[in-house]
Amino acid sequence: MKKLYFTPGPSQLYFTVEEHLKTAIRTDIPSISHRGKAFESIFQQCTENIKSLLSLPEGYHIFYTSSATEVWERIAQNLIAHESFHFVNGAFSEKFKTIVSNLNKSALFQEAPEGEVVDVSSVLIPESSELISMTFNETSTGAMHQSSEIELIRTAFPEQLIALDVVSAAPSVEINFSKVDTAYFSVQKCFGLPAGLGVWIVNERCIEKSLTLLNKGNSIGSYHCIPELLSKSKKNQTPATPNVLNMYLLSKVTEDMLLKGIDQIRLETNYKAALLQHTISESPYLTHFVANAPNRSKTTVVANTLINSDKIIAELSNNGLVIGSGYGNSKSEQVRIANFPTHSKEQIELLSDQILSLNI
Amino acid sequence: MKKLYFTPGPSQLYFTVEEHLKTAIRTDIPSISHRGKAFESIFQQCTENIKSLLSLPEGYHIFYTSSATEVWERIAQNLIAHESFHFVNGAFSEKFKTIVSNLNKSALFQEAPEGEVVDVSSVLIPESSELISMTFNETSTGAMHQSSEIELIRTAFPEQLIALDVVSAAPSVEINFSKVDTAYFSVQKCFGLPAGLGVWIVNERCIEKSLTLLNKGNSIGSYHCIPELLSKSKKNQTPATPNVLNMYLLSKVTEDMLLKGIDQIRLETNYKAALLQHTISESPYLTHFVANAPNRSKTTVVANTLINSDKIIAELSNNGLVIGSGYGNSKSEQVRIANFPTHSKEQIELLSDQILSLNI
Repeated sequence: MKKLYFTPGPSQLYFTVEEHLKTAIRTDIPSISHRGKAFESIFQQCTENIKSLLSLPEGYHIFYTSSATEVWERIAQNLIAHESFHFVNGAFSEKFKTIVSNLNKSALFQEAPEGEVVDVSSVLIPESSELISMTFNETSTGAMHQSSEIELIRTAFPEQLIALDVVSAAPSVEINFSKVDTAYFSVQKCFGLPAGLGVWIVNERCIEKSLTLLNKGNSIGSYHCIPELLSKSKKNQTPATPNVLNMYLLSKVTEDMLLKGIDQIRLETNYKAALLQHTISESPYLTHFVANAPNRSKTTVVANTLINSDKIIAELSNNGLVIGSGYGNSKSEQVRIANFPTHSKEQIELLSDQILSLNI
Repeated sequence: MKKLYFTPGPSQLYFTVEEHLKTAIRTDIPSISHRGKAFESIFQQCTENIKSLLSLPEGYHIFYTSSATEVWERIAQNLIAHESFHFVNGAFSEKFKTIVSNLNKSALFQEAPEGEVVDVSSVLIPESSELISMTFNETSTGAMHQSSEIELIRTAFPEQLIALDVVSAAPSVEINFSKVDTAYFSVQKCFGLPAGLGVWIVNERCIEKSLTLLNKGNSIGSYHCIPELLSKSKKNQTPATPNVLNMYLLSKVTEDMLLKGIDQIRLETNYKAALLQHTISESPYLTHFVANAPNRSKTTVVANTLINSDKIIAELSNNGLVIGSGYGNSKSEQVRIANFPTHSKEQIELLSDQILSLNI
């Protein structure tokens, strides 16, 4: 039986990917040179589509890396000389902080209790922190910041750089990118692609910061430092041979999403999220993990399980529906359900019905 | 018309890749969790196949990165505290040296004239150089070191680490990996896969060196430092979500290569290389770029063109055969022809016939 994946990444492929993959093979996309016109056209299309889909303001650039994890390291190299400040809401925001420390820089932080987000209005951030890191949607816990909280931080700290993790948020949730200086995501979440590609958005202030560090004699990394990425991106190229196939697929999936319309994708996201939250409320096996309703993620819905999560996951899997376990230590006590653009209303309704008719 | 790519990477896909890709999609490989048993089995198979195909000695570990370019940076972070020494035979060996410098470490070097390799017996390498870098097959110029030269360096410098670039060499050329401490390649050359995956081989001395640097307080990078890669690889996992699809394809292509037999692949490589060199000798449009015959690469055959290379490339492309231009400044004056395992004897014979019947 062909299964449907509601795991929070890698997840179900976007429903058009299989066709695009066939076209890619038929037209030799994996064999083309990354220094030739065919590749440059893919790069350009991909970049224009992302800018359009996310309504990026003027002056924001898009770079391609191998993952969002790589972007954490590139931000730590290019945008932080001494110190950063991190809102830690779970395992992924924590990992970024650790990467900054690994590069022998000081990573200050405020940590939220599990299933909550840090109350941004109560946090003291020293002026010495060059960059403030926020994670819009913490994929490990399903806790989501509000857009207003990002704006609050922007207003309070106009001089500092703000980095926003939009992994598993973009493009399903509307984000005002003009309020942040850099943002990033990987493609195996909402974009429904195979893993192996990260997208890094930076504004002019980031470019200036990296050049300032470089001119002071700091190492800002090598082939994937901002000046190298920028210089090559102006020619619609990358510093090293990239994951050309995934860039092609991303250019095609973003085209499909633009045709469908980002408003429609977000309306459906909201409907499906509401249905999943309702399902948790109704199920005798589940309770909400994120107590404060406005902080419940729309794209990564997390529930406590009143029995071992294995049993629920196995029962649904027998019916062809694959949901995720809890993250890390919560593996057996929680489930995580992805609500990405590829998951249709009908599929989420089916999943909801199956969850509500569980009898274990 | 479906074309045949003899470009030196990205190149023609290995002839079984299309079928493996169909199986991957049918069995949901892009959707599986990189923390689950199905992925661990792919990791394990891939690693065992590579070890077997390359006859790696005991005590050598295999890690997965996003590219060979990334490996350059990881070597510079993990294995060099202050100084390395580089044999520079062309653009790619030069790039590694530049990456070491970018990380504010000292990269000493000896450079060969274009189309030659550095005479290793005449080079003075200071004892202060912690790592010696050699490039077996310089993909930009088609100049190849001899195995005996690697052994000479090993004997002369038993204490220093030796890093061997085997991009576009492995597995087509036999290499005695026991003579080096680390080696690496990307999969879009001889392995005939889409770009977006690098393979990094390290021995115990590399692991010790990275731990020594870490314990001294040096930064050795973050998620892709050797201790992290090693710790996760023991569980057949990776520190971050990798290019799962490419790892699956690599596990399958290496399985196919093992079935065919590495000796057969190398015999065919030698036959096809000899035919291509003969073709250069016979063609009125081509001359050998690498003057010294034993240093002519078997897998990346480079020729000077007596007319603009564009014309030769266009004429062959009209007949469905795509060869590469010269690298960088030699773009118009040279051609580069890949001789990878996917290129059959019949295909190379066809290419040879077409080159010898050119009338421009």
